[in-house]
Amino acid sequence: MADDIVLVKPVMPAADQVARAVRTVFDSGVITNDGPRVRAFEQQLSARLGSDDLAVCASGTTAIQLACGALRLTGEVIVPAAAFPAVWQAVLRAGAKPVGVDIEPRYLTLDPRAVEAAITPATCAILAVHTFGCPADIDELTRIAARADVPLVFDAATCWGIGYRGRPLLSYGDVATLSLHAMKLTHSVEGGAVVGNGLRVADWIRRLRNFGIGGEGALAQGTNARMSELHAAIGEVVLAESDAEITRRVQVRRWYEDGLHTVDWLTVGAFRPEAGPNVAAMPIMLNADAPVDATTLCQELHQRRIHARAYFTGYYRPSSLRLAGAIPVAHDIANRLVCLPFWGRLTEQHIARVIDALTEIGRHHAPAVHLAGHAAAPVSPGAVGLGGPRGRP
Amino acid sequence: MADDIVLVKPVMPAADQVARAVRTVFDSGVITNDGPRVRAFEQQLSARLGSDDLAVCASGTTAIQLACGALRLTGEVIVPAAAFPAVWQAVLRAGAKPVGVDIEPRYLTLDPRAVEAAITPATCAILAVHTFGCPADIDELTRIAARADVPLVFDAATCWGIGYRGRPLLSYGDVATLSLHAMKLTHSVEGGAVVGNGLRVADWIRRLRNFGIGGEGALAQGTNARMSELHAAIGEVVLAESDAEITRRVQVRRWYEDGLHTVDWLTVGAFRPEAGPNVAAMPIMLNADAPVDATTLCQELHQRRIHARAYFTGYYRPSSLRLAGAIPVAHDIANRLVCLPFWGRLTEQHIARVIDALTEIGRHHAPAVHLAGHAAAPVSPGAVGLGGPRGRP
Repeated sequence: MADDIVLVKPVMPAADQVARAVRTVFDSGVITNDGPRVRAFEQQLSARLGSDDLAVCASGTTAIQLACGALRLTGEVIVPAAAFPAVWQAVLRAGAKPVGVDIEPRYLTLDPRAVEAAITPATCAILAVHTFGCPADIDELTRIAARADVPLVFDAATCWGIGYRGRPLLSYGDVATLSLHAMKLTHSVEGGAVVGNGLRVADWIRRLRNFGIGGEGALAQGTNARMSELHAAIGEVVLAESDAEITRRVQVRRWYEDGLHTVDWLTVGAFRPEAGPNVAAMPIMLNADAPVDATTLCQELHQRRIHARAYFTGYYRPSSLRLAGAIPVAHDIANRLVCLPFWGRLTEQHIARVIDALTEIGRHHAPAVHLAGHAAAPVSPGAVGLGGPRGRP
Repeated sequence: MADDIVLVKPVMPAADQVARAVRTVFDSGVITNDGPRVRAFEQQLSARLGSDDLAVCASGTTAIQLACGALRLTGEVIVPAAAFPAVWQAVLRAGAKPVGVDIEPRYLTLDPRAVEAAITPATCAILAVHTFGCPADIDELTRIAARADVPLVFDAATCWGIGYRGRPLLSYGDVATLSLHAMKLTHSVEGGAVVGNGLRVADWIRRLRNFGIGGEGALAQGTNARMSELHAAIGEVVLAESDAEITRRVQVRRWYEDGLHTVDWLTVGAFRPEAGPNVAAMPIMLNADAPVDATTLCQELHQRRIHARAYFTGYYRPSSLRLAGAIPVAHDIANRLVCLPFWGRLTEQHIARVIDALTEIGRHHAPAVHLAGHAAAPVSPGAVGLGGPRGRP
């Protein structure tokens, strides 16, 4: 029987390289708390980005949280209503107030008109996501943020290796955050980083990740969000492999795009033409005449041992996020977006299996059920933050 | 020249054991996201505690944060005004409101009378710390929490291996949290755990540590607070060494207590008689006639290449923590408490060097300067939460 085709397989360096890296850490006697491997990893990431203001931390989520902390955000932070839960949760964890606004239907990034309409005197930042590696509308958002006199933060969690107008995508925005989680193109098992572009933040992040301890006492925005020396050492080894992973992913995408032409009820996710390579993920959008919705498609693929994910619906839906207005695009997209398996070691045969499965699912579900029958449950417009478990656990 | 005597040296398993553990993880292909090593580590910790409700997470800080999240705490949480910054920061990060109250002077744990006076209708929990492994006043706090009808949470960060009245100290309180940071008796490089005693929390913690993703959508209290498979695998190896480390630390404490008798201007930190072994730390209290304050003592020891730490003053002081009333004991203690180097591989010669250094410092600083001249800077009674960096970074 065929193996499972998982959603992402982490880049795995050779066992002897890992063993050597781990031994170096344990021999040094310093296994966490801002040691030499963390500093070396920060320098390597900085050098590749051409940045002089970068600090790593425990995760992509804490990267957003600490960025909000470093910017002293306590008011409303505009976030996309359709995004991975970490985005609005990290704003909450930082003590600020996320406000969801709609995305635009082509690139699935923050809709600048919706952002403009959502700005109030309480707005203290705009936090946009480069969704699945596709840049947000940087020009428009920069203009809006400048006019509102608030910082523009980009969650570039998935954007390692992606450029925009000749520069790393991570170099845009007053502050940009990166995930170094195992499922990302380059990773440190768990990890994240914050990059200061317009604003200098790295020294603040280094302080906040270590309980904000320093001169005048421990800062309230502090926490433990350190990257361990062990994770940093793995990060260095994986980073050396990342250019090869980019090359592999470019090929995998080509196989997908060739094959998906034959499936007429879906569309490959759009990508801004000035950005590339498109190596973060493999999102597809179900067309209006698709025979299944996103959740059903994931279930049917899973029955065929293919792991796909509908990131904006079901389990991933915000249980409570205050909204600034209607979010028709986010609701529509929730049931139409699916990420297919995407990682560098996928073979042409793997991709053919995915395409075959999609073709078969389309055939089984004819005649088409119109999507209107599968409308997403609306995102709750309830108060910020603390819905959830009912009754004490 | 003599080597530095550091504050804590992590328990370091043999290199080949570490290499084997790391190889197992990388061979499995699962390096994070709730894999088999995390589950096995949870079972091992549970078995040793006799608990059936335990979940690990990224750190001792996130253990407190997730515990507050699982209990849906949004109101006031009573915390000690003298504690490691993680305690009040984790309550803030969970979206609740820490309120500092005084500690009592003997065991440095929450003063039950001060807690009673601080309870208001907004109080939603009492979070006490077993300070340096010494149990809080469990009987009194249990009575007060029951009368106020709020959960009692114990931060037992440093309490692995310590018992109280014939049971693990971690088995007390509705919920107890543990740190598995490298500086703790047993560790997973970075890590933490939450134990449900009166209340069942482990399933909630497992959901919240993974963005709160689940049935009705992602919960607002969620974040990324997973322990990686790599850290869990190291945790298993170190745990197997923890009983030997306890034995070593018992001996180290004996050497200290014998030697410190000769230094008449300090007192070894008190420990409740029904608890033991006293293996978390080596706190000493400077007597009223001590020739130096805590900060100066740390500096003078450091000049002699001995690393000690004054945990309740200077860099570690809360920059902003709302207080329920006066905290004279916390202020007094801040300048009198010092933790001396304490870890299992310290030798009798190391301890002799520390005692000699203390003796010498006492001699150099005679005649005694009265402590009143070194009063601690008062903890700011400012608003909860978001003081800190002034101006954008």
